[in-house]
Amino acid sequence: MSIDDVHPGISRAHIDGPDGVRVPITRVALTATSGRFGDEPNDPVELYTTSGPHGDPDVEIDLARGIAAVRETWVRDRGDVVEVGSARPYAAGPAAGTRQSPAGPATAGPGEGRPILRAAPGRNVTQLHYARRGETTPEMAYVAAREGVEPETVRAAIASGRAILPNNVNHLESEPMVIGRDFVTKVNANIGTSAVTSSIEEEVDKLVWACRWGADNVMDLSTGAHIHPTREWLIRNSPVPIGTVPIYQALEKVGNQPEELTFELFRDTVVEQAEQGVDYMTIHAGVRLPYVPMAANRVTGIVSRGGSIMAAWCLAHHRESFLYERFDELCEIFAAYDVAFSLGDGMRPGSVADANDEAQFAELDTLGELTRRAWEHDVQVMVEGPGHVPLDKVVENVTRQQQVCDGAPFYTLGPLVTDIAPGYDHITSGIGAAVIGMAGTAMLCYVTPKEHLGLPGRDDVKQGLITYRIAAHAADVAKGHPGAQRRDDALSKARFEFRWEDQFNLSLDPDTARAMHDESLPAPAAKTAHFCSMCGPGFCSMRISQDVREYAAERGLDEVEALHVGMEEKAEEFRRLGGRLYVET
Amino acid sequence: MSIDDVHPGISRAHIDGPDGVRVPITRVALTATSGRFGDEPNDPVELYTTSGPHGDPDVEIDLARGIAAVRETWVRDRGDVVEVGSARPYAAGPAAGTRQSPAGPATAGPGEGRPILRAAPGRNVTQLHYARRGETTPEMAYVAAREGVEPETVRAAIASGRAILPNNVNHLESEPMVIGRDFVTKVNANIGTSAVTSSIEEEVDKLVWACRWGADNVMDLSTGAHIHPTREWLIRNSPVPIGTVPIYQALEKVGNQPEELTFELFRDTVVEQAEQGVDYMTIHAGVRLPYVPMAANRVTGIVSRGGSIMAAWCLAHHRESFLYERFDELCEIFAAYDVAFSLGDGMRPGSVADANDEAQFAELDTLGELTRRAWEHDVQVMVEGPGHVPLDKVVENVTRQQQVCDGAPFYTLGPLVTDIAPGYDHITSGIGAAVIGMAGTAMLCYVTPKEHLGLPGRDDVKQGLITYRIAAHAADVAKGHPGAQRRDDALSKARFEFRWEDQFNLSLDPDTARAMHDESLPAPAAKTAHFCSMCGPGFCSMRISQDVREYAAERGLDEVEALHVGMEEKAEEFRRLGGRLYVET
Repeated sequence: MSIDDVHPGISRAHIDGPDGVRVPITRVALTATSGRFGDEPNDPVELYTTSGPHGDPDVEIDLARGIAAVRETWVRDRGDVVEVGSARPYAAGPAAGTRQSPAGPATAGPGEGRPILRAAPGRNVTQLHYARRGETTPEMAYVAAREGVEPETVRAAIASGRAILPNNVNHLESEPMVIGRDFVTKVNANIGTSAVTSSIEEEVDKLVWACRWGADNVMDLSTGAHIHPTREWLIRNSPVPIGTVPIYQALEKVGNQPEELTFELFRDTVVEQAEQGVDYMTIHAGVRLPYVPMAANRVTGIVSRGGSIMAAWCLAHHRESFLYERFDELCEIFAAYDVAFSLGDGMRPGSVADANDEAQFAELDTLGELTRRAWEHDVQVMVEGPGHVPLDKVVENVTRQQQVCDGAPFYTLGPLVTDIAPGYDHITSGIGAAVIGMAGTAMLCYVTPKEHLGLPGRDDVKQGLITYRIAAHAADVAKGHPGAQRRDDALSKARFEFRWEDQFNLSLDPDTARAMHDESLPAPAAKTAHFCSMCGPGFCSMRISQDVREYAAERGLDEVEALHVGMEEKAEEFRRLGGRLYVET
Repeated sequence: MSIDDVHPGISRAHIDGPDGVRVPITRVALTATSGRFGDEPNDPVELYTTSGPHGDPDVEIDLARGIAAVRETWVRDRGDVVEVGSARPYAAGPAAGTRQSPAGPATAGPGEGRPILRAAPGRNVTQLHYARRGETTPEMAYVAAREGVEPETVRAAIASGRAILPNNVNHLESEPMVIGRDFVTKVNANIGTSAVTSSIEEEVDKLVWACRWGADNVMDLSTGAHIHPTREWLIRNSPVPIGTVPIYQALEKVGNQPEELTFELFRDTVVEQAEQGVDYMTIHAGVRLPYVPMAANRVTGIVSRGGSIMAAWCLAHHRESFLYERFDELCEIFAAYDVAFSLGDGMRPGSVADANDEAQFAELDTLGELTRRAWEHDVQVMVEGPGHVPLDKVVENVTRQQQVCDGAPFYTLGPLVTDIAPGYDHITSGIGAAVIGMAGTAMLCYVTPKEHLGLPGRDDVKQGLITYRIAAHAADVAKGHPGAQRRDDALSKARFEFRWEDQFNLSLDPDTARAMHDESLPAPAAKTAHFCSMCGPGFCSMRISQDVREYAAERGLDEVEALHVGMEEKAEEFRRLGGRLYVET
């Protein structure tokens, strides 16, 4: 069921651009202003949408086959990729995951037999590579139409490293999007199975659900069994880029013994995931041996899973991290599929007490160094950030990162501005996210109410996303991002004019807005009533405001501005106007 | 049922101070650190509490009689008040409210026959008056014990106008508290009936509920019938100061016709409410005639109810506001009961488009002037602030208010940093509240999820309060308020050491934290397990951090800091240590 079945007024539309580009958007049709408020049509509001074909009523979806490969022609037409085989049946994959599908073990999964692409020998297939050569790809044109900017703006931002366009040549189902501080602030949702809970079916459902509620990216953080098939199901059904933390799967392969990890095993895991189509990977190459002891006296030590795995490896072998030492080899793999780095902050603070400390900033310096190394390979990079940070130390995180990492996009988890509210960490972190977004963070990784307590369920995913869409939008409005405030203004005008349905449809969550209104005033007539349950029909400040406006309009503002001269007789007419007010009820 | 019935480990305790002061606090007893994490006791954490006798298991409450008058001796012993009658039966009160009680119409309400106090002729009974004379009252001593500061610090802050201690001599049930930027950031909860919904019983229940979840103040914004008895029930049962907006009741008395309002009728309403014990009143005296037309071209006009009532009056009569012109007469009444002004921002923006505009700041200048006029009468003052403000314009609101109003406490509604999330405005506003709190706002008025959609129910009140306790605490941590971060640190230490029950008990909402944990791992053993449902038993970053710590402890940090020298043989021991990790599961 698509959103427009539920909400008349909300529909799927498209922007047509060059190169056959066709960008889906959500169109909110608005009713006309009428009656006391004047008589004028209200233009529809067009909204960025992340739901892809899942939100398109004209598309039939079969999750067991996956969604359409919208980017296939663009990728193949460039002539720089070759087929290197076809997707392995899950059971034989290096993950040794049992074949398991939502419909049951007997059903084939999506993507089986699909050709695997990678760069032809000697070629580099990253968007950064094309951008630096001065080429504006269809992907960049798509993003430009989506963001309402010129394609050259997108190309230049990617070429400079200030933005990335995550775009694995094996994830042809994804709709291009851009992550950079000059563009709309993006939101990432984490999902994934664990050893304790969750099934593939639930995770695919969460993916679709996350895209519906505004996830620009989804990270699959699955651990436990079935990592490989879970990821295949997700990628084949995802219209948004998919990120992973490959060290999780690598660790499973060595029976959860960090000291058994090797670069070779890790590299093979990266290739396995790149062949599946993972668009960006968190690599904790900044957790260097000498930084590990810096965490010893922290209140909460190392809270990043990937960071702690690498710290354990470094200590066990008393050696420098293999991720750091062999980073260039990873770059070569990433360049062959256009996988982007998400340089992990393995030393991020896990409590406000540990924020902005030596360990965190030592690692950040290394992330800056790694950013430049990746750029030497024309590989796209974003940099991950904290974590738990008190509000007065939030902005320093992004200003420092932008400086140290030469403007590479920052991608932050929250940050949580206090530790005392488990169960409400979408809110503790949404505060930090809005502030760090305003200061220049390009993508915000959501935190759900379940953070610290359990894996997010369906409703937690929604709560996290709504909160982060609020934070991202607040940042865009504060940054004066072109067009961001249009939605606020349209909604506020609808609110002022008691166009309730328009107000609901323009809101981030029309279902909830409508349901809360109906709790007090369920009658259909209340949707057109010029009052609400807060004040009741007897009195309404919005209506008095309208009296002021009409009073001003009848006389012209100049005359009204001379009000303080005090001409008593002028009040007569307003009294009559005021009288009309209460007749209406 | 008190909180400690539900949560062993959380109990009611008291701080004893001078003058018979006995301040209730919440004590969270912590279990000892043990096993791998060391062997040490953890000191209990003492928390500021607002629940008063309602949270004291040793006190029996009869809502129909009200709670104990804890301040009676202090007020009477000063010898500057006289009895001016006794509380009128509700039905005969000037509100013409029908007598109605939670138990039904036949039951007597609380407070009937109670003596009404006011200043003896020629006396001024405000805490500002005493503070300026150099007197440290028992109320100030109470607040000092509560805030963990010296009584002189409190007296000096009140004397300078930088803080207020709302404290009507007829609300003897309230426990003294202070509102000022140098103290713990406070939170106000709005409740109240409307013409469309709600009963007295529900409102008293919301009051008790609000105090339980951390409301430092409660405003009764009732409209419709039964305003007077509703307020009496609330005040007699409230351990926190009660605020009102008397123009609401005044408007009811003139049949909802703003132009029929007179100063005399308004004044009588103020006296009626002062005699009941209202501790502070929102007075929209800053909505002056010449400012009204400034709202004509706004997106959302005037959204303050009180502001629009006064705007309507000004336009209807084409005269300057009676509240502004006769403000000194209100000061004299306020001085006789120690009612504090909450100078209303009737021109606050109702949409981000209208933020920080001419209308808003013109009114603010007048609020600065009125602050000084009130201070001439030794009357306590705080100043209300917006509203809807984009994040980049939030801080200007408080810096400007502090300058214009000579440091009088700022009391803001949110602000909401975007208009697009009806149903989630606790979050849109919690972001603004944290930021404006960090910048110096003394009290934050909560916004519930129902804002713009309906009157808050019980769960909305709780959601609003938790969100605002987060915002206020985040502000206190960011400001470096002494002791604020202790709770974060204690909770984070408990989290790191897998002391789950301690983590729950230290959280803002132990019920929810525990319930969310139990969704994934309901078995009692999981409360002591050294893992959680996010990673499962096979791997845990917290445990690896502990490995790092132990590794460092076994060798001494100096040696560990020399790790990068790279001595392979040292790793052997850590490998054995790491081995132990997985045996544990």
